[in-house]
Amino acid sequence: MYNIGIDLGGTNIAAAIVAEDGTIIRKGSTPTMNERQQEAIIKDMAMLAIKLVEDEAGISMDDIHSIGVGSPGTPDPVNGMIVYANNLNFHNTPIRDEMQKYINKPIFVGNDANVAALGEYECGSGSSYNDLVAITLGTGVGSGVIINGTIIDGSFYGGAELGHVSINFNGIVCTCGRKGCWEQYSSASALIRDAKEAAKNNPESKLNELVHGDLTKMNAKIPFDAAQAGDKTAQEVISQYIKHLAVGLVNVINIFQPEVIVLGGGVSAQGDNLIQPLHKEIINEIYGGEKAFKTKIQVAELGNDAGIIGAAMLYKAYEK
Amino acid sequence: MYNIGIDLGGTNIAAAIVAEDGTIIRKGSTPTMNERQQEAIIKDMAMLAIKLVEDEAGISMDDIHSIGVGSPGTPDPVNGMIVYANNLNFHNTPIRDEMQKYINKPIFVGNDANVAALGEYECGSGSSYNDLVAITLGTGVGSGVIINGTIIDGSFYGGAELGHVSINFNGIVCTCGRKGCWEQYSSASALIRDAKEAAKNNPESKLNELVHGDLTKMNAKIPFDAAQAGDKTAQEVISQYIKHLAVGLVNVINIFQPEVIVLGGGVSAQGDNLIQPLHKEIINEIYGGEKAFKTKIQVAELGNDAGIIGAAMLYKAYEK
Repeated sequence: MYNIGIDLGGTNIAAAIVAEDGTIIRKGSTPTMNERQQEAIIKDMAMLAIKLVEDEAGISMDDIHSIGVGSPGTPDPVNGMIVYANNLNFHNTPIRDEMQKYINKPIFVGNDANVAALGEYECGSGSSYNDLVAITLGTGVGSGVIINGTIIDGSFYGGAELGHVSINFNGIVCTCGRKGCWEQYSSASALIRDAKEAAKNNPESKLNELVHGDLTKMNAKIPFDAAQAGDKTAQEVISQYIKHLAVGLVNVINIFQPEVIVLGGGVSAQGDNLIQPLHKEIINEIYGGEKAFKTKIQVAELGNDAGIIGAAMLYKAYEK
Repeated sequence: MYNIGIDLGGTNIAAAIVAEDGTIIRKGSTPTMNERQQEAIIKDMAMLAIKLVEDEAGISMDDIHSIGVGSPGTPDPVNGMIVYANNLNFHNTPIRDEMQKYINKPIFVGNDANVAALGEYECGSGSSYNDLVAITLGTGVGSGVIINGTIIDGSFYGGAELGHVSINFNGIVCTCGRKGCWEQYSSASALIRDAKEAAKNNPESKLNELVHGDLTKMNAKIPFDAAQAGDKTAQEVISQYIKHLAVGLVNVINIFQPEVIVLGGGVSAQGDNLIQPLHKEIINEIYGGEKAFKTKIQVAELGNDAGIIGAAMLYKAYEK
């Protein structure tokens, strides 16, 4: 049997037929056109799934066990709805009921960050562990917590928003309205913001050379490259970035003591450049030091497919 | 059937026979004398349990289903051990095996803060909810998280240490070595520290009058009393205290979105004096404001008995 995973984004709907071990059999996408009525968007998700199964993979719906949908916003997994998703104009949107007009299969719904964490837990970096916290260092700091196969999202399904844990109560104002949220220090956007600022204040820095004098070209890789090349300004930016990332990760460890924390998003592509100095900072902050630091910090494995694969695995979380 | 709950502290061992609904049938205690060998302490726990059952309650061990022990430090619930407890000199202490030398019953072991949270969840303020976060505002900020009857303590059983979430990465140095831990702002000790400091800096403050000029007499009630009486200095202390408490609670809500957060410890005796201004601060910080603030904030019901009752309920968490 296969499952279908659908990653519903503001711009694109991506879908795949996924084997039980997480292998993608067939993948496709269609534009979301999020200005449309929710019924039209959901119909397109169903049509994409049918097309993948019947036209492209040459199998039949009898080979499909379930369909999972990862969506931005707050889901209601029990009723198969999206309670609220800002960038889709979804309000109490009955994904399950609408999709079942076209496909008579179990339909599961989850928040995109939690679903990506589930993907890593079931089929990626977390697949040999009992619990996992997945952190995505991107535009914001996305997160999902999986304990013994259960998505930890709270009674109101809006958790676990680790990026909106304040680590600095008088700090930078966040898009959520709070001060000092972790994502204001540890997202890729925060790194880019700080690298731009440092480049502006230090005209001699290699940061300026690497963006060819155009700070709008700054990205999350450039400060790491400049730091590796010995640029003091960039080293300071990276050092601060890693220090703040460690503060948030030690918070996560003190709360969840998970077997593994999986880092995804653009910044995680740095691999050991990121993980090694991060380890040092974490050991400094953990009560009991190195001996007490048992949680593994790893880079995510599934990349952009975590969302689709995790969506396909939603049945594992909800059919228990 | 009854269960026995034992609250193992650094000074006293408290034990009780507890009915399934949490009613305490018989309670007793014996000094821990924590300088002794672990075997002697554990034997005393068993003897206290036997005495309560056979001598005092006039029932027999056949009426007892299980025994639960709440201990400071890090437990290993699977093996019925205490991995480490500083103020008991416990290292890999086999509580279950030692106790079973005297009492042939299932023995369960848990961390004291988590066990108290379980008590509130099963029999106290949290008994009508699916999930609960219990926060104790005492010497430190203790915490326990229960989701669908499961204690959330991580793969290494050291969670959930919410008091050691840093909310101010350049802030006050904590006993754990980190900077800005929540407990440095929201424990009763933190409130007393800040009230003393404010009294010293403001000789005209009513805070000085209420301690009769002796700052060593400051407690967590006095600043609330002085603030109620209109003292500006005390009002400022309380206002800051509640602001920081709200920062940590909004962190908890953003992570766990629980149905209820239960506040215990001396400060929680303030009841609505604490809860009402806290609500206002939380609404200010929650994404989506008042409409999105669904978690109830309540005062703990069981008081000092939460530990004993929760220990007696450990079987519910581990026999599932």
